[in-house]
Amino acid sequence: MAVITSVDTYDIRFPTSRQLDGSDAMNPDPDYSAAYLVLHTDDGPDGHGFTFTIGRGNDVCRAAIDALVPYVLGLDPDTVDLGEFARSLTHDSQLRWLGPEKGVVHLAAAAMINAMWDLVAKRAGKPVWRYLADLTPEQIVDLVDWRYLTDALTPDEALELLRAAVPGRAERIALLTERGYPAYTTSPGWLGYPDDKVLRLAKQAVADGFTQIKLKVGADPADDVRRFQVARDAVGPTIRIAVDANQRWDVADAVARMRELAPYDPWWIEEPTSPDDVLGHAAIRAALATSAPDGGPIRVATGEHVANRVVFKQLLQAGAVDIVQIDACRVGGVNENVAILLLAAKYGVPVCPHAGGVGLCELVQHLSMFDFVAVTGSTRDRVVEYVDHLHEHFVDPVVIHDGHYVTPTAPGFSAEMRPESIAAYTYPDGPAWA
Amino acid sequence: MAVITSVDTYDIRFPTSRQLDGSDAMNPDPDYSAAYLVLHTDDGPDGHGFTFTIGRGNDVCRAAIDALVPYVLGLDPDTVDLGEFARSLTHDSQLRWLGPEKGVVHLAAAAMINAMWDLVAKRAGKPVWRYLADLTPEQIVDLVDWRYLTDALTPDEALELLRAAVPGRAERIALLTERGYPAYTTSPGWLGYPDDKVLRLAKQAVADGFTQIKLKVGADPADDVRRFQVARDAVGPTIRIAVDANQRWDVADAVARMRELAPYDPWWIEEPTSPDDVLGHAAIRAALATSAPDGGPIRVATGEHVANRVVFKQLLQAGAVDIVQIDACRVGGVNENVAILLLAAKYGVPVCPHAGGVGLCELVQHLSMFDFVAVTGSTRDRVVEYVDHLHEHFVDPVVIHDGHYVTPTAPGFSAEMRPESIAAYTYPDGPAWA
Repeated sequence: MAVITSVDTYDIRFPTSRQLDGSDAMNPDPDYSAAYLVLHTDDGPDGHGFTFTIGRGNDVCRAAIDALVPYVLGLDPDTVDLGEFARSLTHDSQLRWLGPEKGVVHLAAAAMINAMWDLVAKRAGKPVWRYLADLTPEQIVDLVDWRYLTDALTPDEALELLRAAVPGRAERIALLTERGYPAYTTSPGWLGYPDDKVLRLAKQAVADGFTQIKLKVGADPADDVRRFQVARDAVGPTIRIAVDANQRWDVADAVARMRELAPYDPWWIEEPTSPDDVLGHAAIRAALATSAPDGGPIRVATGEHVANRVVFKQLLQAGAVDIVQIDACRVGGVNENVAILLLAAKYGVPVCPHAGGVGLCELVQHLSMFDFVAVTGSTRDRVVEYVDHLHEHFVDPVVIHDGHYVTPTAPGFSAEMRPESIAAYTYPDGPAWA
Repeated sequence: MAVITSVDTYDIRFPTSRQLDGSDAMNPDPDYSAAYLVLHTDDGPDGHGFTFTIGRGNDVCRAAIDALVPYVLGLDPDTVDLGEFARSLTHDSQLRWLGPEKGVVHLAAAAMINAMWDLVAKRAGKPVWRYLADLTPEQIVDLVDWRYLTDALTPDEALELLRAAVPGRAERIALLTERGYPAYTTSPGWLGYPDDKVLRLAKQAVADGFTQIKLKVGADPADDVRRFQVARDAVGPTIRIAVDANQRWDVADAVARMRELAPYDPWWIEEPTSPDDVLGHAAIRAALATSAPDGGPIRVATGEHVANRVVFKQLLQAGAVDIVQIDACRVGGVNENVAILLLAAKYGVPVCPHAGGVGLCELVQHLSMFDFVAVTGSTRDRVVEYVDHLHEHFVDPVVIHDGHYVTPTAPGFSAEMRPESIAAYTYPDGPAWA
């Protein structure tokens, strides 16, 4: 038994725009940032959580996290109902007006919900993926806010699906511990990188054991084709190369531009257009269904900017995506991601999480590992994004071995940033900015 | 010629929850609030703008408005390109991450964009509706951010539509000035009101010349039926009664609950489910297409919480709504609302704006009047919501006569709040809160 007694919040920004790391067609100059919080209790470890932004407005997210503090003070992390807790944040009748369940207030809810999971899992002595995978199907179903989902998936259907995966959990935990979870890397493909750097990093990725890489596209069409050719030449015909347009195109542009890249065999096109455009994604997917060199599809992927479970539900209902890309910090944290994993499982669509930024790899690996153990039981066509930036700022950073995420063993959500990093990169007064 | 030299921002809240004014199934205790700003120039009038919230988090919106201030300082309101200006705010590559184009950052953009329109129209000596209606079709098309729209509406199609409406503008301006624009009232129907108050206010609405009223539904089913009967008895069979569930239901609930109300002839069901659920609205609309007593449809309406033009586009593409409800402050201000008016015109769906709250009536009347003069040329099945709260705080409040909005004549956007109201209701230190 313990009580959450206080909450500290931070505006932490890394000046990544100085090197063009993370540059893409819509985000030319990101400063990877975290609106960060620490839950302090009267006894035992702290809970850490954050949401990810790319610079300006990180202070606005921090202000929204501050607005949620009354919901955690006084709670006992050993008895808190994690489903009720998450719903209490997203259902605040006045704050809800600012979304609902989208944008800044939802990013803030994600940070707070994830911090609570970090705290609860630390107290239980388990990494979050294992904490989740040890819950009963009934407990998992109770984590979800079922409002607006029942036309696509009912709690009873979810229970059935989770119960079917109970046999084999122990075996899959052993497998995961031995092999880790497959990763792909975006490190070669930032839009600001010259061709020789793309070439070098693409070759390096293959040498490091990755079987999939990703390139940014969406600026100059000739550049996209040339860079893709450079990468294809570097990695050979069997390595998967995904491309990512970061929302740059209208529907017709997306189709036309991907047909230009089709001869070089792109594995998926990510964020071809607005993340809000369910029907647009469905149209693009239909248009590219036989565009690959073998007559198969160029797959459509989206999700890192999809606002909430209601939009994911529709992407699945409309057959708009081949790949669902969850993000640990944009929707309402662990709880809403559990809902999205269940929806994707029902529709048989693989989940390949968005990561990178700062700390997103650390968090989202837990969700894919939970999916493997307790939801789908499969890693087929499933990979977690990996980018080799900023991991050194975390107490329990991700470890990549032979193209796989090594299964974390430390208790919690791998969310805790080193105190010296928090101090150095606090905006605007930390030494990195002053 | 002038220069914007400084910006003041305010967190203004009215303690409306004390009277249950504005109470509905999702918002039991709103404190109507404005995140408000004033653009000061070195010469001439100030520009006023705001976004509307219902209390907590109004400070977060104010912080987001503060983040946009660098985009207006130094601009000359006499030469600013209002299309480019609006796009500069919504395309900020770092702030965009917090939406994109939704939630707090988009509410803030709305406030800032609307303030610029207030300033520009004041300097031109025209009310905003007239300023807009005097633009050429080409100038109107240039106001819009066309990104993500072209699969539904191209700039050329919009031009054609606007050019077709140029003949008759003068006539319609005269008609509007004479008759005003049709209104409906929600004042009788708040969920917290007892039956006798519903009865009294419904009768009063008819006596005041309204031909449509609206009731809140979505809490106890028996209450919904009883209250609807009370209202129907009060107003007789020919007055239209719309109902509003404020997002309370899942798809199947919405259909079932509306079939219970069907015998009493509801005109539309507003916000039956999540504002993000395009496919859900389409399913509800299809299910209710012959449910009215005469075998016609119970109409489906939504929009006050629809995040942006991309979602409105899909609601129209999917045939998901009979009525589009724009809000002056949730999407990106005047500019994005012009886009939505053009989309609705293309699909032949009437626009009946959301209003009420604080100041929403003052703003949105201008947009419907512009639609009548320069876009659709019609008021058929079109009404602007009216609620008789908080108008006394505005310098140029709306005037309702015989169930119509009287056409505003004062220059600007009717957005300016009285200085004594700003002082009294500033949160948390104004005398209304202290």
